[in-house]
This record gives sequence, structure tokens and C-alpha cells, in this order.
Amino acid sequence: MRIGVLTAGGDCPGLNAVIRSVVHRALTGHGDEVIGFEDGFAGLLDGRFRKLDLEAVSGILARGGTILGSSRLERARLQEACEDAKDHSKDYGIDVLIPIGGEGTLTAARMLSDAGLPVVGVPKTIDNDISSTDRTFGFDTAVGVATEAIDRLKTTAESHQRVMVVEVMGRHAGWIALESGMAGGAHAICLPERPFDPADLCTMVEERFSRGKKFAVICVAEGAHPAPGSMDYGKGAIDQFGHERFQGIGTALARELEHRLGKEARPVILGHVQRGGTPTAYDRVLATRFGWHAVEAAHRGDFGRMTALRGTDITMVPLADAITELKTVPGWRMDEAESVF
Amino acid sequence: MRIGVLTAGGDCPGLNAVIRSVVHRALTGHGDEVIGFEDGFAGLLDGRFRKLDLEAVSGILARGGTILGSSRLERARLQEACEDAKDHSKDYGIDVLIPIGGEGTLTAARMLSDAGLPVVGVPKTIDNDISSTDRTFGFDTAVGVATEAIDRLKTTAESHQRVMVVEVMGRHAGWIALESGMAGGAHAICLPERPFDPADLCTMVEERFSRGKKFAVICVAEGAHPAPGSMDYGKGAIDQFGHERFQGIGTALARELEHRLGKEARPVILGHVQRGGTPTAYDRVLATRFGWHAVEAAHRGDFGRMTALRGTDITMVPLADAITELKTVPGWRMDEAESVF
Amino acid sequence: MRIGVLTAGGDCPGLNAVIRSVVHRALTGHGDEVIGFEDGFAGLLDGRFRKLDLEAVSGILARGGTILGSSRLERARLQEACEDAKDHSKDYGIDVLIPIGGEGTLTAARMLSDAGLPVVGVPKTIDNDISSTDRTFGFDTAVGVATEAIDRLKTTAESHQRVMVVEVMGRHAGWIALESGMAGGAHAICLPERPFDPADLCTMVEERFSRGKKFAVICVAEGAHPAPGSMDYGKGAIDQFGHERFQGIGTALARELEHRLGKEARPVILGHVQRGGTPTAYDRVLATRFGWHAVEAAHRGDFGRMTALRGTDITMVPLADAITELKTVPGWRMDEAESVF
Amino acid sequence: MRIGVLTAGGDCPGLNAVIRSVVHRALTGHGDEVIGFEDGFAGLLDGRFRKLDLEAVSGILARGGTILGSSRLERARLQEACEDAKDHSKDYGIDVLIPIGGEGTLTAARMLSDAGLPVVGVPKTIDNDISSTDRTFGFDTAVGVATEAIDRLKTTAESHQRVMVVEVMGRHAGWIALESGMAGGAHAICLPERPFDPADLCTMVEERFSRGKKFAVICVAEGAHPAPGSMDYGKGAIDQFGHERFQGIGTALARELEHRLGKEARPVILGHVQRGGTPTAYDRVLATRFGWHAVEAAHRGDFGRMTALRGTDITMVPLADAITELKTVPGWRMDEAESVF
Repeated sequence: MRIGVLTAGGDCPGLNAVIRSVVHRALTGHGDEVIGFEDGFAGLLDGRFRKLDLEAVSGILARGGTILGSSRLERARLQEACEDAKDHSKDYGIDVLIPIGGEGTLTAARMLSDAGLPVVGVPKTIDNDISSTDRTFGFDTAVGVATEAIDRLKTTAESHQRVMVVEVMGRHAGWIALESGMAGGAHAICLPERPFDPADLCTMVEERFSRGKKFAVICVAEGAHPAPGSMDYGKGAIDQFGHERFQGIGTALARELEHRLGKEARPVILGHVQRGGTPTAYDRVLATRFGWHAVEAAHRGDFGRMTALRGTDITMVPLADAITELKTVPGWRMDEAESVF
Repeated sequence: MRIGVLTAGGDCPGLNAVIRSVVHRALTGHGDEVIGFEDGFAGLLDGRFRKLDLEAVSGILARGGTILGSSRLERARLQEACEDAKDHSKDYGIDVLIPIGGEGTLTAARMLSDAGLPVVGVPKTIDNDISSTDRTFGFDTAVGVATEAIDRLKTTAESHQRVMVVEVMGRHAGWIALESGMAGGAHAICLPERPFDPADLCTMVEERFSRGKKFAVICVAEGAHPAPGSMDYGKGAIDQFGHERFQGIGTALARELEHRLGKEARPVILGHVQRGGTPTAYDRVLATRFGWHAVEAAHRGDFGRMTALRGTDITMVPLADAITELKTVPGWRMDEAESVF
Repeated sequence: MRIGVLTAGGDCPGLNAVIRSVVHRALTGHGDEVIGFEDGFAGLLDGRFRKLDLEAVSGILARGGTILGSSRLERARLQEACEDAKDHSKDYGIDVLIPIGGEGTLTAARMLSDAGLPVVGVPKTIDNDISSTDRTFGFDTAVGVATEAIDRLKTTAESHQRVMVVEVMGRHAGWIALESGMAGGAHAICLPERPFDPADLCTMVEERFSRGKKFAVICVAEGAHPAPGSMDYGKGAIDQFGHERFQGIGTALARELEHRLGKEARPVILGHVQRGGTPTAYDRVLATRFGWHAVEAAHRGDFGRMTALRGTDITMVPLADAITELKTVPGWRMDEAESVF
Repeated sequence: MRIGVLTAGGDCPGLNAVIRSVVHRALTGHGDEVIGFEDGFAGLLDGRFRKLDLEAVSGILARGGTILGSSRLERARLQEACEDAKDHSKDYGIDVLIPIGGEGTLTAARMLSDAGLPVVGVPKTIDNDISSTDRTFGFDTAVGVATEAIDRLKTTAESHQRVMVVEVMGRHAGWIALESGMAGGAHAICLPERPFDPADLCTMVEERFSRGKKFAVICVAEGAHPAPGSMDYGKGAIDQFGHERFQGIGTALARELEHRLGKEARPVILGHVQRGGTPTAYDRVLATRFGWHAVEAAHRGDFGRMTALRGTDITMVPLADAITELKTVPGWRMDEAESVF
């Protein structure tokens, strides 16, 4: 069998572990051939690819990034690209394509599949917001990086009697904020799923100071937004859903709290460090298992589906299920977190 | 409500996170009172306990060990102890007892429960071998520590053209070896669940050397054992199951390989570093959720059961289910791992 | 002897290690008594202090922050405060004061000393910019945090063919940028000591892209500034030294490079995570040695001086020497760094 | 100029950083050519080498081990080897040889130099026991790994009221034990430089238990030895210096303490994890500076010497000075450490 593999979308710790696993399983388990397309779908369209043997994937398990490179595909060009991709796959003699990517990539994968190309998807997002899988690789690493940052910020906040506002990734779903906030013991967590009111945050901070805990750490997802009109010292733009959006909510919130409380409040924007670097053991195992099962699915002819974690098992779910709905943080998970501050 | 909490059995990263979570949820969510017994069941029997308020659990989320201390209960004294424990619980006015522990502790918990004491268990083991829950806290941390060690050993093995044998924890179940071996990219994994043949390991090493990869790392659970009679340079004792057991299998295997291969082979025994220190973010979140749900179960009167992870949910399962059978590594998980070396 | 100890100025990993070391050496080595003033000089002036015994410093060696709290002293109130401080020291029966702090604290320490109070200083700054000592504790930890961030950013930069601009601490001296840039393998380093020209950075990036290395990481101290007038897409304020200053040089530089190069350039501002959390082994050892030697100096009557690292020895240097001149990065250290990109 | 570089002796974090730095400085700073010999002096003698360009050293800065491989040279063959090496160096057109290694390697380097070969040495040892340099790279990483292990062991010792005996590297000099013991807050440190008496250790442990600190961690260098005859429960061999030597002093000492104290005492042997894996920022900077200065020395014709750290400067010292005497831990450094338990 000739397997094509590509990585698309944002960087995510564990991509290399999937590539390595696909190559190992395909070559040593089935005697297949594997080629890797460079820079995501771009490499498929432009014919940039290389053969991947055991040597090519040696030593990459623990390395962040992707040895194949990545790129984002513009939605507008998707339809056209898909048709080209199908043709190109034939040209290159690909029996099955394994695209590793997020919601956009899986949408493209589904289109390719509908157009008749044998496709087995592998979901990827540090945001953990893909439906049909319990978790995605990269998420555990991102949460780990954010938690370590919160651990560090707590000691500095405490020494200086300060409020620290940590902005973590999560534009549409607040999983990273939820879990790093819980793990780091943040005193409040603001998610895109539930508008926050700065007044509540002030109440929390003052209650802490009144019982001698003269600092607070607030963990904010980049997509978090205040209840419309609840910010006194700044004004955001109202988006299509009626949400008030601030460019840089961490900074806006720190300023708001400083004004209201008359105490020092400092923003820390973690940014891209959350998506780079060596993956945690958890992510390496999950990514390796995804790669293994993708190859098995290919050999079973189980196309049009993607690997997914359900409990402790890796199963295959229809690509369609993965991309219809974003997996957001349910209310009861937020309630759980909020009562353990 | 008056809640008693205790930690028993071996140290495990995340114990403090459970204690903290129980106290936070009980006090701020329900207005309960929480007392902590010292040194496990010993504190319950001897009347050594202290009140736990928010201040008592401040700053312990990220700390390894247990602020309550722990001890192992001898099986022989279990029956007697349970009766005493029940009486003592009444003396101290405990409405519910939340014991956090492993298989032994949960067995005691079940006996207490059968004797009429309201009990909500929280499972704990770094070995991940308790049935009825997808994972236990502490396991992720242990795997992380072992994986980092394997990462480090690989570079030194490679520089010196050596075989390194890393012995990790896991007397009866090989989960730590399985996942740290996969995550670290070990070239072979030996588990208690499947006797190994040193001849196979030699074949693997020589195959690697022959294609220029002049080193190998083998990850061995402490409970792994060779196929009886397969070790040429050492002799173990045959146990009740017909397994040949070596005291220090890592050291015995390194010696065996060195003799057979005529290459340097060195054992590294990771030991207790795997069960101490700050828990990973994953373990902190899981431990915190377990504590939260234990308090909720207590308030629902859902006794005789323990918290368990199923997929992404925390559910309650009968204590009886947890302790009847050890959760060992199934064959297909080993097959998965073995084909990605 | 009765020793007073206080921590002042910004948070710095290792402060607790000094406090612990002072207490251990004074109590077990000399039978002294130690009291700790709360929140820096404020506690001395307001009479807020507590006795520190072995139990009080148990478990703090590896903890970031300071158990005594800290505050910054306004320069204007320094003279007045010093006189008060001297009186208060007598009131509390202090035989010697050990202030642990940065340039401002050491200046105050010197004034107190000149006024006749027995003082032994311990220098502290994550910026490593205090003269007369080879290194200060906290610096190694800050460099470690920044280096880990650069390690992570490199993989994400590489996967996306991006320029990443990492802003690290260092307002007046570029030590953190120099050493984390070298350790992380940044492709350019911008320090306060040498104005940079964005044109040079563009040349470097394009040279890299032209030989197939399609990413770059630039490490910028927060106090770095461009050669006046060299930024095309932004305008800073000219300060008293004729330097063009930007609020947020990392963000300004990323924008400049993106415009000039037509490539994605992203800023990452590490901020306060650099000064919090558990200190590295290096910093714990240095801090512990400083504490030990401060107590010995007190017993020798070696006042008006501070501990300093010279080679592998801890020596005492006049407070006056420490505060006259900022220790900046010499040109030859920058030359060294620049030729190893 | 044509520069030959090789790495010899035990693995040490930072070797790759030196190689990378030599290549960068030589190629971009001077237009030199660099070749790397494989597996230490063996590659020089057998003619196994390869050209090192910028691409060859890309991405190795943070990687443990050595891309060139290493081997130990037998003392007996040294004289002969040196003559061959000199001839071979001429054959390959080497203008200068930069051997990176420990005491054995530097001895060979000196013999080569005496025989007329232009040599610039770079010292390497995780043990930090080379005279004439304040520190060597690799040491900081080893201390960091050992300290993290002690941090972890403390929580598990505390939870179980145990004595933990941690054996770290250091056969002839106790630097790793000294600094990791101080940094980890071990309660006793045993070094090769000063025979220990188990009775003293028991006194310390019992004193701790009597004041409620019911655990202890003892840090032991592998080369530590008891005062002759002071061990009751084991007997070592007397070496040429009259020292009683045990194979595995950590294990022997744990057994001794368990017998004497009637408390659980467990050994942990850290082993090879201390010398592998990614170097700390400190070691990367030091290694990079050593590489840079070695190239500069070569261009100045400053042969027969090696790079050394003195304070904050890199200087050149005669190879002869480095190898005459082992740098052991002076008594006053041990006194310092012992009074801060």
C-alpha cells in the first residue's frame, strides 16, 4: 500500500509522533510505502513530497512542530483544491491519504472523501474542541505549559499583593483555561462559553484580601468576553452574537480590575509557547496510538473516518461527526471548577 | 455534614489535590465540616485527627505527598480494625468517611461500608491497575517522570553504543512501562502480563546495530519476568504461578544481555522518584474532580461506591467492582506498542 | 545575637532560600535569634515582624516568592525612612539587619549603615546587573524560563515559517536576553546596551530563508531600543539619552519586521513568569551560600558590606561598590554571542 | 584553517553545544573548514570523519549526547595512539585539533601537544573535578537532575516516615552530591573527600524524628565511604588508601541505617539519567563560550592549552595544569553545606 501523510493547520505538539507512528506501523507492520507531503495541502497540490523511511522519522518522537511543515488552507480555495488534490493523489499513486489536522483540515478531508479519495483522518488541536473524541493530542502539553506558568505567577503575585490575569489560548472553547486554571489553582476562570462580570471578579478578590490572602490569579481564555456593558473602563466591539469583544481581553481585564480595585493588576499573555516544544508523555502516547490506528483503518478500508479516543479505546468515527459542532465546555464542568477555588 | 478524610497506602502525586478539593467543595459548597485523620487508618483507630479549614489546605494543590500522612494497614488486622473504625467514626461524629487509597484501602473501605459505615471511596494508585476507572491520578506523573528518564538515557546510550535497561514501577500491571516505553520511544517493553524471552531482545538489539543504530533502550516493569528457563546467566525463584522471578529484574536482564551480546548493557532503576513530587496538570485536574464528586456523592447519600473516570465523566462505581480484579494491560495494547519501535 | 532579616523589591527566585539559610546558620551554628520583618522596609517601619525558628523556614527552600512579603520603597521617603529604621532597629533589639534586595534596597542599606546601624546586605536581582558580584541568584532561573520558552517557540516558528520576537526582562541591562538568547539559539539578540537596526535583522532573516531555514527567533530585552529613526512603521519617544523608546518593544519590532519582510512576525512577551516559581539548583545553592556568609559576616562584625560571588568564592564587598554602577553587558560578550547564531 | 574536532570519554550534556559553536565561529567568523572525527580518538586513528557545515550542526544545541559519538581510550594504548594520531592529523590536513573531553582526553591532548601537534583542549566532565576551571559544562545539568529527584523523594519520604538514601555520581570528587544535596535540602551529605560515620547519620535522623520531622533524605556520592570499621551490618574491601569501599554504597548505607534505626530506609541510585538529556541553559551558554574561545585560541596559535572559566571570563590555561590534580571539594565548602540542614 502507498500511504500519503500530511500535517495542516496550527502547530501542535505530537504531530511528529503521529508521523513516526504511521511510518513505523506501515513499514514494519505491513510492508507499505509512506510519502509525506510538505507544508500541508500545499505540498499535495504542488507536488512537493518525500519518501519517509525509518531513518526519516528517527528521533522525532519527542520533538515539537512537524518535520513535514504545515500551512493553512484558505476556505475559499477549498472546493477547487479538493478536486486538484484528488487528481494529484492519483498521479502520485496514493492508495490512501492520512491528513492530520484540525477542523479546517478535517472539513477538507471530508470533501476529498466525498469526492472518492480514500481518506483516514487524524484530529489535531491544542484547543481540545473537536467533537467525537474525548481528547486531542497537544492539549495536555498546552495545559501543562499554562499550568507551570500559573504556578510561577502565584508566587510572584503573593509576594507583591497583586492580581495577575493570565490569558491562555482558546478562541471558541475554554478547555485550556478550564484545566490549567483548575490545575494551577487559579482563583477565577473566564471562558468563552460563559460571559463574565468584572464585578464578580472584584468581589472574589476583595473577599480573598479580607481574609488575609492578599493576591489572586485569574485565568482567562483569549476568547472570553464580559457580559455586554459590564466593563467600565473600556469598550469592545459587539460581534454578530451580541458579545462584547476586546482585542486582548487579558490586558483589558487587568486594566479594568486595577481601576476598580485600586490594586496592582498585571496581564500575562502566554501566547505561542503553549503550542510549541516537546509533547508531554500523555500526548506522545495518544499521538502514537492515533497513528497506529490510522494505518490499521487504512488496511481495513475504513475510509471517510477519523481516529478518536473514547475512554481508553481508539475508535473510528465519521469525519462528518467531527466537524459539525465545536466541542465546548459544558456548564457542569465550569460549576465543578468554580467551587474549588 | 461532618466529613472524615484519610489517605492510606503508598505515596501518590495528587493526594493533596483530592484533600484540598474535598475541603473546598464541602466548606464553600455545602457549609460542611471536614476533619482529616493522620497516617491513614492508624489515625482513625488512635483518634489522631485535625480539623481542615481553607487555610489548612492552602498551597497544597501542587505539592506531592499527603499533608495527612499515610500508613499501610496489615491485612491480618483488617477485620478487627474495621470494627474499631466504625465505632470510632461514630465517636468522632463522622457522617461520612472518604478514604483515599489503593486496592487495600478500598477493600477496607468496602468492609467498613458493609458494616454500615457511610463510605465514599477515592481510588489512588500510580500503577493505574484499579478496575472500573479509566485512569487513576498519580499515574500520569509517574509516566512523565519515567519518560523524562528514558529521554535522557537515550542520548547517553547513543553516545556510548550501549544497551540501557530501565526498570520502572509496576509489580502486577505494566501500565507505567507500557506508556513510558511508548512515550520515550523505548525499543522494547517488558511487562508482567507477558513473559519475555531474552533471545528476542538480543535479536532486536542486533537488528538495530546492523542498520547503524548502535544503541537500544529497553523499558522493564519491576514485575516483568522471563519465560521460565530462558535466562542463561542467572536463575530466579519459581513462584506460585510458575513464573521465574528475579530480585531486581532490571539488573538481571542487563547482565544477561551483556553476556549474550558482548556489548555494554547498563541497568537504571528509577525507584521512588516515580511516586513523589509535584503532580502533572492532568493528575491535579483528575484528583480535584475526584474530590469534588466524592463530596457530592456524600450529600446524595451515594455510599459504598467510589469515584471513577469513564471517558470524560466522573461516575460512581461500587467498591466491590474496583477490588475484585486487577486491571492489567490487555494483549492488544502491547501489540500496539510493539509495532511502533 | 539578634538578627533582623527582610526582603525588599521585586520578587526573585531564591529569596526563601536565603531566609532559610540565615535562620539555619544563625540558630544551629551560633545560637542566635532571628526575626523577619514583613513586607520589606515597611515592616521595619511599622513594627510588623515575627520570630523565625527552624519550623518557620521548613519546606521553603524550593519555593518561589518570599515568605516575608516584599514592597518597594519610594526613593523620596528613603532618607526619612532610614532614620526611622535605625530607631526601630534599636527598639526591637536588633544587633544586625540583613536586608535582601536589589539596587534600591542596597542603597537604603548603605544609608542605614552610614547612619550607624550594623548592616550586612545580600544582593538580589533577576537582572544580574549588580556590580561587584559575578552573578546574583534568580538570574539563572529567569534565564532557564526564557530559554525553555525559546525552545518551544522555535518548533512553532519552524512549522509556520514565521519570525518570532520574544521579549524578555532587562530594562537597563541585557543579561537575560544575552544568555537565554545564546542558550535557546536565538538568531539575533537585541540588548539595551547596543541600539539595533531593524534593517540588519531583516538581512539576517532573509539570509536564513534564502538558505532554506524558513523561520527565525529574535530575543529582545524589554529595554532594547532601535537606532533613532531606524524604525519605519512606528515612532517612539526620545528619552534623555537620545534613545528612541517604544512601549512594548517586542510588539513594535514584530510589527516592523512583518511590514518590511512581508512575512508573519509574532511577538511573545514572557513577562512575570520569569521571576516566579521554584528556583533552579544553581540559584538555590548561591542563595543558600549568601545566607550562610551573611550570618558569618555579622558575627565577624563585618558591617556595611554585602555578600558577593567571585569565581567560586563568596566574599564581602562594600555596599558602596555595589550601587555606584550598573553592571551592563560588555561589548565583547555581545560579539561572542553574535557569532554563534 | 582546517579544524578537527572530536568528543571523547563519558557522555556529558553540552557536548553538542561545543561542536555547534566551534562550527559556527570557525565557518562564519573565519571562513575555516571543520571536520568531526567519529567516536573520539578511535575515529582519528581509523580515519572515520565527516565534514561539519552549518546544516550538520543545525538543531543540536539543546540535544544531549554527541553527534560525533564517543569512546574511551585505554591508557595502555595512549602512547602508541598519540603517535598515530599525530601522523593521521597530518594526513587529513588538520591545522589544529580540538579534543573535547575529561581528564583522560586532556592527558592524551597534552601528549599530542608535546609531540608537536597543534591542540586546543576543551574540558568536559559532569563531575566538575577538573582543576583550573571554576566549572565545567554538564555539571549544572547533572546537579539539576539530582536536585529534582531529591525534591520528589522528600515528599515520598515524608508521607511514609522513611529515610531515603540517594546515591548520585562522583567517584573521586563529591561536587554533584554537595550541590544537589544543598539545593535539594538533603539532611546529610556524604562525599568521597570525608569519610562518614553511620552513627552520626543515625543521630541526625533521630534528632529529626524527636522534633516531629519524621523523615530524612541523605545524599551520597557513589565514591563516598565510611570511616573504616564503622559499618556494623556490612563489610567492604580496603583499598590502597585504607578506605573501606562498598560496591553500591547507597544500598549498603540504607541497609545499615535500617538495621540501626529500626525504621524503613530505602536506597535510590540515580545512575545514568544524570549524564544524558538536554543541557540546562547554564551549560549551553558555558559550552557555547568554550567552543567560541577554542576557535579564537586556534587562530591566535595559542596551542597546548584549554579553555577555562574564571569568574565570568573564559581564559586559556596550560593542559598540564588541568590534569595534574583532581579538583576535590574543600573542607570549608562541606562545612558551609553541613550547617544548613
